[in-house]
Amino acid sequence: MSLIVQKYGGTSVGSVERIEAVAEKVAACRARGDDIVVVVSAMSGETNRLLALADAITDTPAPREIDVLVSTGEQVTIALLSMALNKLGCAARSYTGAQVKILTDDSHTKARIEEIDVERMQADLKQGRVLVVAGFQGVDSAGNITTLGRGGSDTSAVALAAALKADECQIYTDVDGVYTTDPRVVEGARRLAQITFEEMLEMSSQGSKVLQIRAVEFAGKYKVPLRVLSSFKDGPGTLITLEDNDSMENPIISGIAFNRDEAKLTIQGIPDTPGVASRILAPIGEANIEVDVIIQNVSEDGTTSLTFTVHRNDLNRARGLLESIAMELKARSVVTDDQIAKVSLVGVGMRSHAGVASRMFTALAEHNINIQMITTSEIKIAVVIDEKYLELAVRALHSAFELEYDAK
Amino acid sequence: MSLIVQKYGGTSVGSVERIEAVAEKVAACRARGDDIVVVVSAMSGETNRLLALADAITDTPAPREIDVLVSTGEQVTIALLSMALNKLGCAARSYTGAQVKILTDDSHTKARIEEIDVERMQADLKQGRVLVVAGFQGVDSAGNITTLGRGGSDTSAVALAAALKADECQIYTDVDGVYTTDPRVVEGARRLAQITFEEMLEMSSQGSKVLQIRAVEFAGKYKVPLRVLSSFKDGPGTLITLEDNDSMENPIISGIAFNRDEAKLTIQGIPDTPGVASRILAPIGEANIEVDVIIQNVSEDGTTSLTFTVHRNDLNRARGLLESIAMELKARSVVTDDQIAKVSLVGVGMRSHAGVASRMFTALAEHNINIQMITTSEIKIAVVIDEKYLELAVRALHSAFELEYDAK
Repeated sequence: MSLIVQKYGGTSVGSVERIEAVAEKVAACRARGDDIVVVVSAMSGETNRLLALADAITDTPAPREIDVLVSTGEQVTIALLSMALNKLGCAARSYTGAQVKILTDDSHTKARIEEIDVERMQADLKQGRVLVVAGFQGVDSAGNITTLGRGGSDTSAVALAAALKADECQIYTDVDGVYTTDPRVVEGARRLAQITFEEMLEMSSQGSKVLQIRAVEFAGKYKVPLRVLSSFKDGPGTLITLEDNDSMENPIISGIAFNRDEAKLTIQGIPDTPGVASRILAPIGEANIEVDVIIQNVSEDGTTSLTFTVHRNDLNRARGLLESIAMELKARSVVTDDQIAKVSLVGVGMRSHAGVASRMFTALAEHNINIQMITTSEIKIAVVIDEKYLELAVRALHSAFELEYDAK
Repeated sequence: MSLIVQKYGGTSVGSVERIEAVAEKVAACRARGDDIVVVVSAMSGETNRLLALADAITDTPAPREIDVLVSTGEQVTIALLSMALNKLGCAARSYTGAQVKILTDDSHTKARIEEIDVERMQADLKQGRVLVVAGFQGVDSAGNITTLGRGGSDTSAVALAAALKADECQIYTDVDGVYTTDPRVVEGARRLAQITFEEMLEMSSQGSKVLQIRAVEFAGKYKVPLRVLSSFKDGPGTLITLEDNDSMENPIISGIAFNRDEAKLTIQGIPDTPGVASRILAPIGEANIEVDVIIQNVSEDGTTSLTFTVHRNDLNRARGLLESIAMELKARSVVTDDQIAKVSLVGVGMRSHAGVASRMFTALAEHNINIQMITTSEIKIAVVIDEKYLELAVRALHSAFELEYDAK
């Protein structure tokens, strides 16, 4: 008998019919003998409906009151799902975040979980009840309702699984697992049976939006086996684990992530003196603009140029700052480009295999795709290219690294 | 500086615009220097919307989960009203029933308040904040969310006023006070400046649906001055107090209540033996059918007949029971009539004035209205008449007791 935490998102509980379908799934698992804790989001559309009410009143609502307001969304779902489970003869009981209690700090609308009280839940589990817990919400030490921020239900599920020492945390979504790359771009994209936390982090931070990145970090930190699977069709999904120990030999590459969210800024003709990079980047950081890829080149005339990428939404602010910096440093010019895309190869196998980069660059060169920037980590190589080549590059790399075939 | 508890019902907070109007009313009171605790209901329609969701899932939802579900309605309102107050520069903070905390028994969907923790509220009041509390809800000693049953927000307000020792509890509704009788029936119906708790109890139990009867009982018990007034227009409303001490002489009659909710059953030709009334009424009571007026007549042939009234919704059930009882008792027949109405004269002045009944009966006789049943209490005389004479009777009595004139 295992203890399983299951999380169903807003789409999965988006109507009474879907809530009933979830109840049947949960009751079936329970009938197989497992103990079940279910974490649910608000019915899809509900959080936006509530925020629209607040918006009609004020542009600057107190974050504390926003949390009181939107936390009702999940509270409705836990009650309805508990009713649906009871109707199927499956004893169930709902819990708000405050009732559990999921203790958080007091950062309203983006609170962090500090501790979870499992005593009451364990007593209910012992009596054979399914527990239905409101995701996304908690309570601070003064008893105020808090929320974890959008998508925080994944984090709630992982934190509950960690606190209860669950055997598995299952995240039900509208996709049936994590793929080698986006199936809308590469027809032959393949569902991964397994992936490591590190790989998953690189995949999701690079733009494969299956799971909340915070939830993955949390699962890795507390060693909670995490499985992504579909609410709507049966299947094993993708298991995210600590170490990829199942096969004798890891594949070099697990997947290909990509995004079009970034823009590139270059400051040219700056005197090549020590500390110049930090003089340029410090004001950007102070303005809370996140910088992703950075490269610096020394040119032949003894000046240097620095190029970096930021989120496209921050481009205008970053350009403004960079132009003042250029004046101060007497740099030659500032050039920006928002027609870029980033493609990343991700895989723990990279650690033990040489030649990944050269195989990547060869594949791109064969299609005449020019690489503008390169950045690497232990388990990732990412390149920035012209946005128009994005699909071509992803397909070329998917094929070059033989991801279509079930290597795993 | 006074401490005022104000309660706004579902219609008063039925839209964002109305919530903003309530905020302005509250902020204006606060600006005059009073400490304010506001109790609100769910936005009108919201509770029904939530119950319809539950209804789509099951006919027999667990009462515990019904409470989790419907308590979100008030939670939405407290957040929105707090935001609206903050926007007006009026510091405000929302409280759910659990946060206050309003401790109740564990009778889900019809819980009774046992205790209210005022410490946290008093601390907030001291800091100059307006408190916005969710009506209708509480929490049991195990931390489960409970509700007080429909209309329970009035009771929440009175209980909070009692616990906080407020100077006045103001119930804002869609009428501007308690009237001598329903102004839709008698054009000259007059708003009462003041009425006693006892009178108000008779008025509301007799069909003047201004206030929850439980709230009035509660206010009387804890001696909380209660004022009914309009959310939509200014005015002093009606003050409900312990004793009607303001005028030297009380008017005989304060108001006239009436209803068409009842039906009459008569069992005829029963042997006139001791205990026969209880043999008839006991099964009715056991079936949870409430009996209102009862009269027994001895007829000339030595048999007796018993007539009583029940709520019209219970008529069919009551008739079924009464027919089996008639068989057992070998009674002659069972006759029912749902075309009846009850008219009640209410007034504490009745205690010290003789002749109220005869004046009442004379007024009705002058209009050829036959009295079918009579029942009295210390401060009430009620008659059952043919429903078709209801308006005529109310107008005749309103005039006979000179209620049009400001006697009070």
